[in-house]
Amino acid sequence: MNLNKVLPTILKKENIAKIEDGFLLIGDRRKYPFSMSFVECKTIEEVCDAIKGMVTQGGGPLQVALTAMCFVALQIYNKEKKDSIETFRESGNLLMKSRPTNTTMTRTLNQVIDQIKSWYICEQIRRTNNNDLIYFVESLVLSYEEKFNNDYLAMGKLGSALIKEGDGILTTCFAEHSFILSLIEAQKEGKKFTVYVSETRPYMQGSRLTAPSLDELGLNVVVITDGMGANLIQHGLINRYMTAADLVAMDGSVVNKVGSLANAIACSYYNIPYTVFAMSPDPSKTDKKEIEFEFRDAKEVVKGETLEHIKGLYPAFDYIESSLVDTIVTPKGIFSPNEIKKIFTSGS
Amino acid sequence: MNLNKVLPTILKKENIAKIEDGFLLIGDRRKYPFSMSFVECKTIEEVCDAIKGMVTQGGGPLQVALTAMCFVALQIYNKEKKDSIETFRESGNLLMKSRPTNTTMTRTLNQVIDQIKSWYICEQIRRTNNNDLIYFVESLVLSYEEKFNNDYLAMGKLGSALIKEGDGILTTCFAEHSFILSLIEAQKEGKKFTVYVSETRPYMQGSRLTAPSLDELGLNVVVITDGMGANLIQHGLINRYMTAADLVAMDGSVVNKVGSLANAIACSYYNIPYTVFAMSPDPSKTDKKEIEFEFRDAKEVVKGETLEHIKGLYPAFDYIESSLVDTIVTPKGIFSPNEIKKIFTSGS
Repeated sequence: MNLNKVLPTILKKENIAKIEDGFLLIGDRRKYPFSMSFVECKTIEEVCDAIKGMVTQGGGPLQVALTAMCFVALQIYNKEKKDSIETFRESGNLLMKSRPTNTTMTRTLNQVIDQIKSWYICEQIRRTNNNDLIYFVESLVLSYEEKFNNDYLAMGKLGSALIKEGDGILTTCFAEHSFILSLIEAQKEGKKFTVYVSETRPYMQGSRLTAPSLDELGLNVVVITDGMGANLIQHGLINRYMTAADLVAMDGSVVNKVGSLANAIACSYYNIPYTVFAMSPDPSKTDKKEIEFEFRDAKEVVKGETLEHIKGLYPAFDYIESSLVDTIVTPKGIFSPNEIKKIFTSGS
Repeated sequence: MNLNKVLPTILKKENIAKIEDGFLLIGDRRKYPFSMSFVECKTIEEVCDAIKGMVTQGGGPLQVALTAMCFVALQIYNKEKKDSIETFRESGNLLMKSRPTNTTMTRTLNQVIDQIKSWYICEQIRRTNNNDLIYFVESLVLSYEEKFNNDYLAMGKLGSALIKEGDGILTTCFAEHSFILSLIEAQKEGKKFTVYVSETRPYMQGSRLTAPSLDELGLNVVVITDGMGANLIQHGLINRYMTAADLVAMDGSVVNKVGSLANAIACSYYNIPYTVFAMSPDPSKTDKKEIEFEFRDAKEVVKGETLEHIKGLYPAFDYIESSLVDTIVTPKGIFSPNEIKKIFTSGS
């Protein structure tokens, strides 16, 4: 399957991150679907500001960070930065700090930078790659992207099996590749279903990213406000709640966009299964205590909606106890939360 | 206590509904707090359109409907309408249809119109009131308003006793007089507490009505999005969830603004009490089956937030099972849901 061909506009690789004319361009998810525009970054600091400013989100920062490694190689080639592994490491550290809760980017960058390190310390690797750093980093990044794409496809296959004819699926935020590939696969199998999308205030990723993407794919989509999930579950419209995970801890607990917890509790109350898509747990997070929860500027909640001096609060992520999660779809299979530790510590 | 003096701007009587220069003016809650403006209605049909269009909400339609009875008397005085009880009844029926779920307005209008009927059939009443219909209707409406004010004050006293020093109180939508009087009373007693206000999409009654009103009273207020209630409860910031009720059925189940159910379930999950303010149950509603649930135009959910052709859904009210409700504050006292039937069928 040509991933880039089947995925909706906002998930096509060239609309997430790319390098053009010495700029790293990031697809601006804040402006979609009203325009498909890009934020142009000249430096890694600008890339970090864009990530912090929600230009991209969800799995976007991971792809931006991978592209940023190629961008650093280009900066070195242009002699704008020192030709040293430290240049990659400093850039990587800045990127990692730009999104503290979702650790996939951090874990991947650490691996990539470790492999780039081999370039600097191993004459053999330089010779094999014709001493071309850009080519080496690009090939490395491409191999990671291919691995992720294969994981997405595997999860899409697995996820689609959970979707039944006539289902009402509730989702929050923008669950991206693996969730959307599950829907595409279920659609190919001829199943009819409706996806109820929580708008996801204040950035409206549900209304602005998920709903237009599913609509583009010809799926039935209905937008609701963030307070309506329990109502629809009670009314029998929902068979399954499906979201991405910004993080899965080794105890099977899940971190995802704020709003997910309320729906997960309502699902548990009305006996509706909650399914989470995750590439892997973070092996360094045994449980809640080790997770860093990002609080964003409360102005993003109150701005324009009430008097300017009134306070707000913006906990960006929910922590969802493993007892509220029915299944976790991973590239290795579909597991219950209490299986995660066993499956993901017995070697990859 | 001079109610009109202590209540915040949006709840002062003259800002809810009034008659001026032959118009019935309704305080426009859609534009508050950015302006305190009024929608001018020349006919009862226009009043109904304003109620349907959310110019006023919560307890507002009740006060508008009472004022509308005085307005009908004025129309009769001006010979714009026939001098007959049917004129009141037809206007009343139109008003009752404008907000189907909350039945307080309907129940009150039926009582008021029954009493106006006595004007038309009883010579004695006409003589006692100097044959002045406007004076009679105005006095009648005033007596209802006084009764409601006394009920609000009683509920405020009772509600304040539930609020403890240091509390974090979660609320949804705009719980109006009895809730706000509870907070005012608790504040007078020197208690410090914080009210977390769910913004209440799509009309933002939380951000736009509740938050500025509490801020005006000098209370600590924090605005959150509708998906954040469970998050704050889990983090230990919330001791009590308090809302108004658009309807209480005789079995102690509650109807309130969509978003309330999700919070009530989260409260139950984390053992936090949910308190509802209600003047009385609707004796004609024994349980859920008899309640009419208003669905509003889904365009109100999606408009401006996504592509125009994408569908939405707007169930305006949540039904909350009695098992999720801890206490119901009424003018007669604070009761558990299962006491409601006994207390409110043994005579008034």
